[in-house]
Amino acid sequence: MTQTDSASVRVAVSTVIFTLRPGQAAATLALPLVRRTREPYADRWALPGGWLDPAEGLDTAASRTLAETTGLAPSYLEQLYAFGDVDRSPTRVVSIVYWALLRQDEVDAQRAIHEARGDAPDNVEWFDAETPPELAFDHAQIIRYALWRLRNKVGYSRIAHGLLPDEFTLAELREVYESILGRRLDPANFRRQAEASGTLIPTERFRTGSHRPARLYRYNRAVELADRGPLSASP
Amino acid sequence: MTQTDSASVRVAVSTVIFTLRPGQAAATLALPLVRRTREPYADRWALPGGWLDPAEGLDTAASRTLAETTGLAPSYLEQLYAFGDVDRSPTRVVSIVYWALLRQDEVDAQRAIHEARGDAPDNVEWFDAETPPELAFDHAQIIRYALWRLRNKVGYSRIAHGLLPDEFTLAELREVYESILGRRLDPANFRRQAEASGTLIPTERFRTGSHRPARLYRYNRAVELADRGPLSASP
Repeated sequence: MTQTDSASVRVAVSTVIFTLRPGQAAATLALPLVRRTREPYADRWALPGGWLDPAEGLDTAASRTLAETTGLAPSYLEQLYAFGDVDRSPTRVVSIVYWALLRQDEVDAQRAIHEARGDAPDNVEWFDAETPPELAFDHAQIIRYALWRLRNKVGYSRIAHGLLPDEFTLAELREVYESILGRRLDPANFRRQAEASGTLIPTERFRTGSHRPARLYRYNRAVELADRGPLSASP
Repeated sequence: MTQTDSASVRVAVSTVIFTLRPGQAAATLALPLVRRTREPYADRWALPGGWLDPAEGLDTAASRTLAETTGLAPSYLEQLYAFGDVDRSPTRVVSIVYWALLRQDEVDAQRAIHEARGDAPDNVEWFDAETPPELAFDHAQIIRYALWRLRNKVGYSRIAHGLLPDEFTLAELREVYESILGRRLDPANFRRQAEASGTLIPTERFRTGSHRPARLYRYNRAVELADRGPLSASP
């Protein structure tokens, strides 16, 4: 194994961005895909991404390629997994995949800025994460893996926060969990567990409207949103 | 960004192997390191690893380079994280890091086979994972991250299994948790939680010796040791 051999492997980065879109019965997870303009897989949909520039770190490359292809800038990207099967692309490519959650209002606000500036990206559309169109490379497998990780992670971390405004009712929090998990949760049980978790701080404000007023909560910011441990200091 | 630029990034794989070594007070986590024989960082200790061969997948490359450098062959390697800071090596290298757990008796048995065959690897030594010697590249950071992930993961998965024989007492299981977490656990609480977890199956056998007989348990094999979800089918 010489350095020349290893130089024929190239490194790319891709990003899976989930948002919750209001649906008829429940909100559904959606993600942006980019239509490819060249071979391989010309005209197929693919995850936003691009080649790693030798002068930039992996996190920086993920943010840059996401911004270049979709105009989106999440406040936080987390590394998901490195995909490197030999046959995943006609040439030998290892893709470092990142993921992030964005609220629908953040997506709308970022798109409005780009439209006002006239630099809204072409070839981007949002799709239901469960039923994406036919995809390039192994991107269908990557999306299935990201959905699986999201569903696992929602159980033991505060990941739902990324899909909620700063203040929210327990019903709104439960609906995020229900959308991610794809099943109904018992409201009384959920309220008990959420209140016992120590991660929520009740405010003195209430959501009013057609229902009886519901108390607004916020997350305890003393805990990091996504704890990457010794990697937290990375850019 | 052209393909030529991205070709100057090379991909390596490295592996963190933890085992539990009996200690004076409690067992301690240990890991094998390989002394480098060439620049950069000649004579420094480093994680076992090597270059990705373009003809092999990431998992295969991790197993191969681990076997070549240490002679170790864990039954299961899990991908940990991709490290790709620009300045982590004099040249631009992205390292895909794997990790695994091996019982001390497996380590001993594999070493005995290599010594009998006369192909025991040179330049390998085991070190306390908490206090490794001075390391090449960013490998000290990688080990700290692996320890942090191990401690996090032991709380919500059956990862301790990788450090236990097929049958074990609840005291032995607790001692593995205590060694990984670096703190004492209340025996009665631990027993209650372990029995309630649904992952342990009591046997009709008992460990006898200087203490009163203790029932042996085994893990419920209906659950995968490490659930990688949609990636489980990968080699």
